[in-house]
Amino acid sequence: MEIKEARPYVVESLKYALNPSSIAVVGASRYPTKVGNKVVYELQKWGYKGKIFPVNPRADEVLGLKAYHTLREIKEPVDLVFVAVPAHIVSSIIHDAVAIKAKMLVIATSAFKEIGRAELQNDITEYCREQKLPLIGPNLVGMGSPYTHFNCGFIPYLPVEGPIAMISQSGANLLAALGTSQEEHFGMSFFVGLGNKADVDFSEFIEYAESDPHTKCLSIYIEGLDSPEAFVKSCKKVTKPIVVIKVGRSKIGHKAAFAHTASENPMDDEYYDQIIKEAGAIRATTWQEFLDVSLALGYQPALKGDNVVMITNGGGAGLLSCDHFERLGLPLKELKDISPLLAQKIRAYMPMFGSPLNPVDISGTASVIQYKGAFQQALRDPHVDGVLGAICPTAVTDVHGVTLAAVEVAEKTKDLHKPFVMICQGGEECSEAIKLLRSHGIPAYKTAEQAVNAMVALRKAAR
Amino acid sequence: MEIKEARPYVVESLKYALNPSSIAVVGASRYPTKVGNKVVYELQKWGYKGKIFPVNPRADEVLGLKAYHTLREIKEPVDLVFVAVPAHIVSSIIHDAVAIKAKMLVIATSAFKEIGRAELQNDITEYCREQKLPLIGPNLVGMGSPYTHFNCGFIPYLPVEGPIAMISQSGANLLAALGTSQEEHFGMSFFVGLGNKADVDFSEFIEYAESDPHTKCLSIYIEGLDSPEAFVKSCKKVTKPIVVIKVGRSKIGHKAAFAHTASENPMDDEYYDQIIKEAGAIRATTWQEFLDVSLALGYQPALKGDNVVMITNGGGAGLLSCDHFERLGLPLKELKDISPLLAQKIRAYMPMFGSPLNPVDISGTASVIQYKGAFQQALRDPHVDGVLGAICPTAVTDVHGVTLAAVEVAEKTKDLHKPFVMICQGGEECSEAIKLLRSHGIPAYKTAEQAVNAMVALRKAAR
Repeated sequence: MEIKEARPYVVESLKYALNPSSIAVVGASRYPTKVGNKVVYELQKWGYKGKIFPVNPRADEVLGLKAYHTLREIKEPVDLVFVAVPAHIVSSIIHDAVAIKAKMLVIATSAFKEIGRAELQNDITEYCREQKLPLIGPNLVGMGSPYTHFNCGFIPYLPVEGPIAMISQSGANLLAALGTSQEEHFGMSFFVGLGNKADVDFSEFIEYAESDPHTKCLSIYIEGLDSPEAFVKSCKKVTKPIVVIKVGRSKIGHKAAFAHTASENPMDDEYYDQIIKEAGAIRATTWQEFLDVSLALGYQPALKGDNVVMITNGGGAGLLSCDHFERLGLPLKELKDISPLLAQKIRAYMPMFGSPLNPVDISGTASVIQYKGAFQQALRDPHVDGVLGAICPTAVTDVHGVTLAAVEVAEKTKDLHKPFVMICQGGEECSEAIKLLRSHGIPAYKTAEQAVNAMVALRKAAR
Repeated sequence: MEIKEARPYVVESLKYALNPSSIAVVGASRYPTKVGNKVVYELQKWGYKGKIFPVNPRADEVLGLKAYHTLREIKEPVDLVFVAVPAHIVSSIIHDAVAIKAKMLVIATSAFKEIGRAELQNDITEYCREQKLPLIGPNLVGMGSPYTHFNCGFIPYLPVEGPIAMISQSGANLLAALGTSQEEHFGMSFFVGLGNKADVDFSEFIEYAESDPHTKCLSIYIEGLDSPEAFVKSCKKVTKPIVVIKVGRSKIGHKAAFAHTASENPMDDEYYDQIIKEAGAIRATTWQEFLDVSLALGYQPALKGDNVVMITNGGGAGLLSCDHFERLGLPLKELKDISPLLAQKIRAYMPMFGSPLNPVDISGTASVIQYKGAFQQALRDPHVDGVLGAICPTAVTDVHGVTLAAVEVAEKTKDLHKPFVMICQGGEECSEAIKLLRSHGIPAYKTAEQAVNAMVALRKAAR
């Protein structure tokens, strides 16, 4: 439901959604296959430190915890009420939540506006707004943060710690990012599913993220914007980079966005392009690009000029990269035109059949020492604005050694505030290298085009 | 060097490059860090069954094998001579190879035309052509096939068995695909690096691949085409689908392609678009798309009409997909317009808040039985041309169970010859699911857009 701007009482209360001292889970089933059971199970599994009050009219105990038949039976303060019961009994639960003075309400339950029950959803929203009880949802998957070991929802994963706050209308896509997080070290500060966003809207989480100390980049997945004005206003207040993916542009996607999260898209896609631009955010097209760009903006400083130098031991990775740089409007320049001195010096780190062009091809035989020297020279050259490194494992490449060298060089040159991005294209040892690099704040990717997308986004972030 | 068409004696001899009975490795070092040592090491490691003759003027034994001081000392038949010695002694090695009547010559050595030594490279090529000794390279990484446990080059991986023949000018990118193969079950029939392709050209490997029983799709990475006429002619002869990625379109990529594999690109990129079209091949833009599309074409039949039905338990995956389908010119149609009967029947496999639109959202609570029913109904409906399935793991999703159901349904509906592609977006259990699906011939991907790229390529393959 539309808001004109982020409401301070809501922004203030979001700490109860992401770091509550106590949670009541309404609909906490005793049966492990039920979603209401999973919420309690995941809270326990990931080490939530606060109090959990399962609420179930037919149970006295759920997963070893005392269960309450109603919210009103709980005689202790409740920060967050998480609701996972059928839609028709949600209203009465909300009245109970108000009665016990809960600080925050999350309704995971589906079957509201997205299946035609707009009136029911609006009634609930209006009541919550009257009572100043912020409502997140309905029709969402959950929320959490690795920093507080907090995983609250139907969510099998807790992400690794990192700089990205993900605010997503889609539960499935949020889950995809969370799964990726553990597997590929996609570091997150917090995450939240907004679902139908009947009450609490993007803008309020955006302002909350600005004040969250762990968040360095906001990643927002949008199916529909009820409050574009508030969205733009909040984004403009934020100093941290924002990446947006907006779906529902296709003819059928339009309808699917409504069926999914009751999202309405009265305007065409160009309108959203304009809104996102006005908000000062970067728009991603594909899901992979959304993740890749978010990671780079979360970990690295902006790219302050166009002088990117690429160091690679594989000409193929270089070619894919320079084609993609040009495709995205940031063509690589020849090294001799960026820095004639560097073009000379870099010869010391390659065999005679290497190429100092840019991409700088230090060849498939490149050693750790050659890599390290080339990285250092490039990052330290005053004419160079950013460096893209690539590891292509031949049978003589010490992938782990080069990875450690990259981490060391990045550490030593941190004060120069130049982005350093890596490609590791290959098998298992490259996946390990990517995780290691990311855990040290270096965005690293499996393919050339992903890394180039990241570097170009860092350039956009500077503009 | 230009050829007008694939030369039959070369095509005929390529079996000695990919399935030789004996190999002489010239430049086989005793020192494990040297590339010439790695070639012998990798041949042994992956279980090559033929004879290996290390050649090294200063060694009597390499990796437990009798070493020969020169090629001429070998008194047994040699199918393949693999050369990894410095460029200035390559000519004399070639004369020896001719003298011992080797069937095939591979020159891995760099520092030929790509660093300005066109004359040396051309002299060698002309001599090999006179002597009818086919030469692959120079400046390449190697070749092999999992079906013969044959890994010949500076290559740390042997791929898993599968339908894709990869013919790549770039060693680094070939290595990336080989690494991916083991990690993500990217099944290959054979692979070869062409490097500078002084003599043996794309067209000859293309014709060889047509006759290779394991190959179902040809994947070709091109930096430059010396013989476009021969390329088109051979592609047109081939009945198997062909996917091409052509780099070097950017201004600097142009120069980088020459510095890398001495590739010349006298024409602009539109020319190559035209050539690839004329060849009847599908052109990929990014490396990831190249791999993803190849996999689909290798495993699945062509998509014979536009009626694709998507079955998902996550609306977000559905939205990313339908936007991308429209972006690529194959918009999804509403299910009721494809098959009103199916639109009714599919309701049985979802809760009330599911959506039968298309994407068909069977909701985050979907069980194995619901998935199986929906997949079966969709694939069996006579109005449906292909099915895209998606698994988004919520805390109640049985990812492994759904995967097995997908495999079973695919097996049962094989005779219908309809493509079936999967998305598994999430963590480790999804990576496992993807590998399992691929090992059963179902192209499966981590992101929606990858799967849509695959499905759209299957449609192009039918046209």
